Amino acid sequence: MIKARITVTLKNGVLDPQGKAIEGALGALGFEGVGHVRQGKVFDVELEGSDPAKAEADLKAMCDKLLANTVIENYSIALGS
Amino acid sequence: MIKARITVTLKNGVLDPQGKAIEGALGALGFEGVGHVRQGKVFDVELEGSDPAKAEADLKAMCDKLLANTVIENYSIALGS
Repeated sequence: MIKARITVTLKNGVLDPQGKAIEGALGALGFEGVGHVRQGKVFDVELEGSDPAKAEADLKAMCDKLLANTVIENYSIALGS
Repeated sequence: MIKARITVTLKNGVLDPQGKAIEGALGALGFEGVGHVRQGKVFDVELEGSDPAKAEADLKAMCDKLLANTVIENYSIALGS
């Protein structure tokens, strides 16, 4: 069993209205000195098997096909134990 | 300027219908051996100042007040440069 964490974030330059809303809300709550906030997604995936190379290839394919919109999003894959 | 990444994930035992939907979709796309999938959120926050201890305290307060629902979610904070 291989566990992996996939993090999907918006590319630089892509507008992030949700992040902007959080910035505003943090300011309204009294937090000072908050700069840019960007929101992304994280997926914790369990895969059968024990071959990290195959797992990474599968996870890349999952990101390209389903989990990330590679036009506007970057993804990173971190394999765990 | 301190950059931080906050990761918010559902606690164990909390139902994750979005993760279940992704599991089903990955199966339908032909990916085999996919076990549980859980979805979470990630926030990249920029903070003014250079005191990591103060930044971490502020970020914890932000999570408790706004970014995470601590009844059903866990959060972790990773400070960058």
